[in-house]
Amino acid sequence: MSLLVVGTVAFDSIETPYGQAEQVVGGAATYISLAASYFTSHIQLVSVIGDDFPEATLADLTKRGVDLQGLQVKKGEKSFYWSGKYHSDMNSRDTLVTDLNVLADFDPVLPESYRNAEYVMLGNLTPAVQRRVLDQLTSRPDLIAMDTMNFWMDHALGELLEVIKRVDLLTINDEEARQLTGEYSLVKAAGHILNMGPHILVIKKGEHGALLFLKDRDDQEIHIFYAPAMPLMDVFDPTGAGDTFAGGMVGYLAQTRDLSFANLKRALIYGSAMASFCVEKFSIDRLTELDVPQILQRIEKFRALVHFDREE
Amino acid sequence: MSLLVVGTVAFDSIETPYGQAEQVVGGAATYISLAASYFTSHIQLVSVIGDDFPEATLADLTKRGVDLQGLQVKKGEKSFYWSGKYHSDMNSRDTLVTDLNVLADFDPVLPESYRNAEYVMLGNLTPAVQRRVLDQLTSRPDLIAMDTMNFWMDHALGELLEVIKRVDLLTINDEEARQLTGEYSLVKAAGHILNMGPHILVIKKGEHGALLFLKDRDDQEIHIFYAPAMPLMDVFDPTGAGDTFAGGMVGYLAQTRDLSFANLKRALIYGSAMASFCVEKFSIDRLTELDVPQILQRIEKFRALVHFDREE
Repeated sequence: MSLLVVGTVAFDSIETPYGQAEQVVGGAATYISLAASYFTSHIQLVSVIGDDFPEATLADLTKRGVDLQGLQVKKGEKSFYWSGKYHSDMNSRDTLVTDLNVLADFDPVLPESYRNAEYVMLGNLTPAVQRRVLDQLTSRPDLIAMDTMNFWMDHALGELLEVIKRVDLLTINDEEARQLTGEYSLVKAAGHILNMGPHILVIKKGEHGALLFLKDRDDQEIHIFYAPAMPLMDVFDPTGAGDTFAGGMVGYLAQTRDLSFANLKRALIYGSAMASFCVEKFSIDRLTELDVPQILQRIEKFRALVHFDREE
Repeated sequence: MSLLVVGTVAFDSIETPYGQAEQVVGGAATYISLAASYFTSHIQLVSVIGDDFPEATLADLTKRGVDLQGLQVKKGEKSFYWSGKYHSDMNSRDTLVTDLNVLADFDPVLPESYRNAEYVMLGNLTPAVQRRVLDQLTSRPDLIAMDTMNFWMDHALGELLEVIKRVDLLTINDEEARQLTGEYSLVKAAGHILNMGPHILVIKKGEHGALLFLKDRDDQEIHIFYAPAMPLMDVFDPTGAGDTFAGGMVGYLAQTRDLSFANLKRALIYGSAMASFCVEKFSIDRLTELDVPQILQRIEKFRALVHFDREE
């Protein structure tokens, strides 16, 4: 079972109320791949970096089963760099620096062995790049999932809608769902988005959890599930939490090869669990030190958080 | 089993993106009593109104088992009046008018038959009035719950902390929990509040649900439960949703006489279910037309919303 992951592999500089991290490893595809690697061992990465990226991280990804054939390394160039500062509420942040560097003219090329991937996760990137990845696939994957952000709604809406039309599962945050549809009610917004192409929608609400909407292909009925976020004592660094969530979710789906509502629910909980680890340390630090018992223990905490018995 | 409810019985004028309602029945104690009346039939109301309040609403409350002996009616005076306008996101609102009227010099007097109430719900009111109610009780209730708001933190913090010290259960929204403790993390804020007197804390997060924190009296461990809000197609009028939530919760607790963690969880879900009805129509309209099967059906929807199975 192969999972194709497209997205940035990058450097971040991050300031949060808990401290600072300078030029640390980040990027959507990095977080997605690491989170997914706890569930599935055949991950194919498509991205681009400069020759400034740490060998140790690449070796670590390889060791965790991530195939780097599709990772372009541009000699003499610099990797994508983002710098941001979180406000005290951790829900909002200011972007201080965005240096596209190698990303400016990124043309994704899928190695032959990637082209029949069964699961695909398009991390947040310019829609044109996401489309070029889909165009190189030689067979229809079982699942194409994509993430995006408000920036593309503002600057490339037409192209974005073209890609959305071709995917099965869209992840998007609550504000973006509202922007994309002009509906404040997330239930109404979901109804619109499930007419745009995807039949599975995940609305991410940050510290307030995530909503899953599945449109039944037979009777068109929409099923809803809510996955909470784990209430945490401290959130050290929210960077990458959304990507980690997506990575845990698609990694779990690729492993189980089951796209039923019951299994999609579990996949959301696995994604939420991985995201709850991600924010406990800066950068990818927490995601490189987990083990399966820790993850299962966290899943049990999620179950306990929302479980109630009917009257005896 | 008696439930003593203290709070406002009032008029509201409300504007939401869905329409307007002029001079309709509102007030914390009204919403609390109506919601609780679906679970327990012995409710004792303490409040004050002018002689402008509709007889029909009073008759309706009486019919639903609400004892109005403790409701003072001031001849020639006007009932408390609030007018507000909700923004398009329904999460924020502007207060347009607040006319205290009879509330300005409200001195609550508990009829003899109220003084040994076993369950007490102090709705949002000036802390001095909440305290004067507690002072008239002749025996310690099984549960004293209270609601409050940021206004009293700004203007009567000392008195507020004195009342909080005497209650078992505090309901408060997320921003208020942060303001009261200076902690952004709700888990940390809960830790502080559970040292102020209450051993049960419910943090209301509006459309994002509610968190229950219970501090075990033996081992001091804090147990957490999360009750989601029902994702709704339309929220017509959020006025009274927090009070309805509290009313459903304490009504259920008074009926079941069980303050275990398992039962508190159920009480939160019942509260959430009642609140999800409340917002479907203006004023108290939805709360006067429910029946038990509708409520149980909504409880099942809540269970389905968050329930997931472990792997088969």
